[in-house]
Amino acid sequence: MKRTHHNGTLRKEQIGEVVHLVGWVAKRRNLGSLVFIDLRDRSGIVQVVFDETMTDAVKEVRSEYVLEVEGIVQARKDANPKMETGEIEVIAKNVNILNTANTPPITIADDTDSLEDTRLKYRYLDLRRPVLQKNLMLRHQICMITRNTLSEDGFIEVETPILARSTPEGARDYLVPSRIYNGKFWALPQSPQIFKQLLMIGGMERYFQIARCFRDEDLRADRQPEFTQIDIEMSFVDENDVFATVEKLMRNIFKGTINYDLEESFVRIPWAECMRRYGTDKPDLRYGNEIVDLTDIFEYTEFQIFKNIQSEGGIINGICFENIADKYSRKNLDALQDFIKHGFKAKALSYLKMEEGGLNGSIAKVLSEKEKEEIIARFNLKTNDLVLIVADQAKIVQASLGALRVRLAHENDLVDQNQYRFLWVTDFPMFEYSEEEARYVAAHHPFTAPKAEDVDKLFSDPEHVSSRAYDLVLNGYELLSGSIRIYDQELQAKVFEAIGLTLEEAKARFGFFLDAFQYGTPPHGGVGIGLERLTMVLAGTENIRDVVAFPTTNSAMNLMSDSPNVVDQKQLDVLGISINKKEEDK
Amino acid sequence: MKRTHHNGTLRKEQIGEVVHLVGWVAKRRNLGSLVFIDLRDRSGIVQVVFDETMTDAVKEVRSEYVLEVEGIVQARKDANPKMETGEIEVIAKNVNILNTANTPPITIADDTDSLEDTRLKYRYLDLRRPVLQKNLMLRHQICMITRNTLSEDGFIEVETPILARSTPEGARDYLVPSRIYNGKFWALPQSPQIFKQLLMIGGMERYFQIARCFRDEDLRADRQPEFTQIDIEMSFVDENDVFATVEKLMRNIFKGTINYDLEESFVRIPWAECMRRYGTDKPDLRYGNEIVDLTDIFEYTEFQIFKNIQSEGGIINGICFENIADKYSRKNLDALQDFIKHGFKAKALSYLKMEEGGLNGSIAKVLSEKEKEEIIARFNLKTNDLVLIVADQAKIVQASLGALRVRLAHENDLVDQNQYRFLWVTDFPMFEYSEEEARYVAAHHPFTAPKAEDVDKLFSDPEHVSSRAYDLVLNGYELLSGSIRIYDQELQAKVFEAIGLTLEEAKARFGFFLDAFQYGTPPHGGVGIGLERLTMVLAGTENIRDVVAFPTTNSAMNLMSDSPNVVDQKQLDVLGISINKKEEDK
Repeated sequence: MKRTHHNGTLRKEQIGEVVHLVGWVAKRRNLGSLVFIDLRDRSGIVQVVFDETMTDAVKEVRSEYVLEVEGIVQARKDANPKMETGEIEVIAKNVNILNTANTPPITIADDTDSLEDTRLKYRYLDLRRPVLQKNLMLRHQICMITRNTLSEDGFIEVETPILARSTPEGARDYLVPSRIYNGKFWALPQSPQIFKQLLMIGGMERYFQIARCFRDEDLRADRQPEFTQIDIEMSFVDENDVFATVEKLMRNIFKGTINYDLEESFVRIPWAECMRRYGTDKPDLRYGNEIVDLTDIFEYTEFQIFKNIQSEGGIINGICFENIADKYSRKNLDALQDFIKHGFKAKALSYLKMEEGGLNGSIAKVLSEKEKEEIIARFNLKTNDLVLIVADQAKIVQASLGALRVRLAHENDLVDQNQYRFLWVTDFPMFEYSEEEARYVAAHHPFTAPKAEDVDKLFSDPEHVSSRAYDLVLNGYELLSGSIRIYDQELQAKVFEAIGLTLEEAKARFGFFLDAFQYGTPPHGGVGIGLERLTMVLAGTENIRDVVAFPTTNSAMNLMSDSPNVVDQKQLDVLGISINKKEEDK
Repeated sequence: MKRTHHNGTLRKEQIGEVVHLVGWVAKRRNLGSLVFIDLRDRSGIVQVVFDETMTDAVKEVRSEYVLEVEGIVQARKDANPKMETGEIEVIAKNVNILNTANTPPITIADDTDSLEDTRLKYRYLDLRRPVLQKNLMLRHQICMITRNTLSEDGFIEVETPILARSTPEGARDYLVPSRIYNGKFWALPQSPQIFKQLLMIGGMERYFQIARCFRDEDLRADRQPEFTQIDIEMSFVDENDVFATVEKLMRNIFKGTINYDLEESFVRIPWAECMRRYGTDKPDLRYGNEIVDLTDIFEYTEFQIFKNIQSEGGIINGICFENIADKYSRKNLDALQDFIKHGFKAKALSYLKMEEGGLNGSIAKVLSEKEKEEIIARFNLKTNDLVLIVADQAKIVQASLGALRVRLAHENDLVDQNQYRFLWVTDFPMFEYSEEEARYVAAHHPFTAPKAEDVDKLFSDPEHVSSRAYDLVLNGYELLSGSIRIYDQELQAKVFEAIGLTLEEAKARFGFFLDAFQYGTPPHGGVGIGLERLTMVLAGTENIRDVVAFPTTNSAMNLMSDSPNVVDQKQLDVLGISINKKEEDK
């Protein structure tokens, strides 16, 4: 075996050279005295020509046979500009059939028309599609850049256990019965959070891990039962250090994979401001169209509905899109109203169109001239601009306009697919009220530090305590979240108390982890970055299965290996467990 | 926080500089008007001096407090040559106590005298010991070199599933009950073997992964329930390509971590020869003392015992150690005999000592002069050499002398701890006879290719079919094993038949994996390298827990997190499983 070249790399420069290639038959065309075979390897495809002296040797050859070919590179008479190797072809002088192949049950091509479920069943064939190979190489590249960048900056990758302990907080754990300790279980980690904080207590100072995480959730389209996190934790740092580390990492990844230059440091917006301006904590900054507060304009309005909403503590906000009013018929606008009514419990959507003669639209007749003038001035309206207004309680207003902002930007092609806009959202609320548990719960996790200036509000005004939690948002997706952690035992006790846990209850829940904090815990903080999401963004795909080698379906089934599956009774016996048949209606 | 230096890096060059340090209090000495604190961070320890103006600020400070110190570097009056920073000290000008610490329950020092179980319980404190931090950094370094070396050579790291399918061959699987599919289970992979071969079928060509593996075994001292494997697989290759890849990797790792130059390519010895010469398939080549066949010398012997053994098909082999005969009393030699009697079922150990007057020892009197002369000539014996002889069936002879060779080399300090001797053992037997199953089973795994010239012996003489399996041995440890795989369906069917499986039975067992082979499988092969073993060798430790961040005990218990542990009944209910109390005597 003396392979000399990779198929997809052959160019005019190799004309006249004897090459020794290997690969799979992507396509075979028999022209009688000539046979053309497109030979595919990981690098790409090259056309191999078998003349009348060679056709016999390949007469049995079919798609996906594995060949070894010796030949001479020559210029093609009719270059194929669609192929990277389209200017040349290889004239076969020797061929060896390394393996045969049955007819593949799926179409192995980037524009495959085979059903996804069939492709998942034959994943090992689907993986031959160039686009999937490129995605896996991209994922590898991201990981290599991550490791080299962090390693150069003194971070140590430490492998933390997969066989870990079940934590009753958060999502559902996958459990692993112990054979040796009957009745006891390991749990697969939802993240290395506890271990990485223990490593900081252990003096590791700068840790990272590209770590497998597990959540037994009812899946959504962009989730898998197991996923991978670029997990980072640092000691003796504040937000600026963490942000600088992540920003450098992102710059290196974007430059190294798609040759895109990111800015030196990313925009930061506190959570409350972010909600006011974009109606969401993960805004897409590739377009403007921010939410504008109009409440003051209507302070003395005669328009009864706006008047009532204000007296109920509500607000009036609007967004404006330029030069699209003519595209939005009454029917389109009704659809937008339905969208926010059903999606966000908004009572109504008001709209105004800037026309040659002035403002028109659903509420044009009920507003005063002064109100209209102020709206025109506030948005600096020009002819054919569209203004959407929602008047309601602040949460509903923000959610509705935030969603409309995204929807209209996409409907009107305002989203630049070649732009990458990062944003740090900071100062997340420390607590959120759980209707279910009738108490405040930690919004992030109970080890997140509150902002120093809010500590005295922990009990008097928990709703307005900001935390040192942050998210990094990219083009409307949450790419990572993290926080500066509590390292002071007294503060930790207060935070537990604020969420209604005594220190004893907290110890029962978090046990050894809390013990560890007594022995000299350094200030520390970190992030967890979703590797699949990052890879999806860089690969330009919305399907998480495009960036995972052996994915499950949305219902957590691996169709290739038909797993999960039944096991031998003997295996259950040694584990000392048995299966309860679930009732039908469960 | 403006940390300027890492504590262990301060040298005379920094004298006069203002430095800002952080770290843990390793030691505190109070001399009244002066307080000395050894401040430890990941890089090492530096002595900080608090003079009378500062002693008040640190009067509460105890071991493992976390401090932030600003000070000036000055030369020490009495340099401490035992400390890397021993020529300087830091005169504190400002100190900030970042955190307090309770008295640690273990001694945090490389020469700790705390019990291992206590240290495992407080692993987060044990991890502050410099030696453990160095080991984890070494492990990180090995992984970085591995990834960069392989990546540069076109290998792609692909993450394969942790939630996989149970395979009824091999060791016991850890099982994970599925919540969504009641009664079905995932299994944690014992290795990515099946996935990596599927990636070759999928056209990935060159794959690697630093992969977590799981085996639910009754543990031995050097095993953990989860461990890590440097997993490599390549298409279109033979043994030479695989060996060259691994040799380059090892050269880079040994050079990059301990600055040790390995040879360009490693010695190769076929398995049968290895067994003959060393009595083991993992010989330590740091010393000679090979096994020598003496059977021919005794072809016509009068010594009845040797005569009988030959007539029963046995052999007579010996090993020789130079210049140690005087150290082995009758009592010592009886101990050696007991060792091989109990360990390897040998009937007896014969010995000869070369003395001034000629051969002496247990069988000196019963051998003829000619036999003695031939023995002297064969070993080139000099005064005070010791010869140990075992006469028995070949397997017993090899096992006994192989073990004696190791034991005597260690007893006599013949093992150079600074040498690294690699060895490829090739041509392992394809099958071994299983007394339990009363059939031949695959010695490696049933996808290992037999040597081409032995294929016609698959049925007629299975015991003498050699495979294309290989091990890499380092200083007597098996560092990796691997093989060239079968890629031809017909050959695979024959191998199954040879181990008594019909293709149907094989399909029931290996299912989708065998289906995959029908669609154009390239020739391929690879290896799996034990990362913990490699790190242990380079760290110079015999304890696997020295190279794992959060290890379990030998009985698979994590003492720090007290896991495995019981879980809520609710968790079991949603999984639809229940626990059977095991009977006491089970």
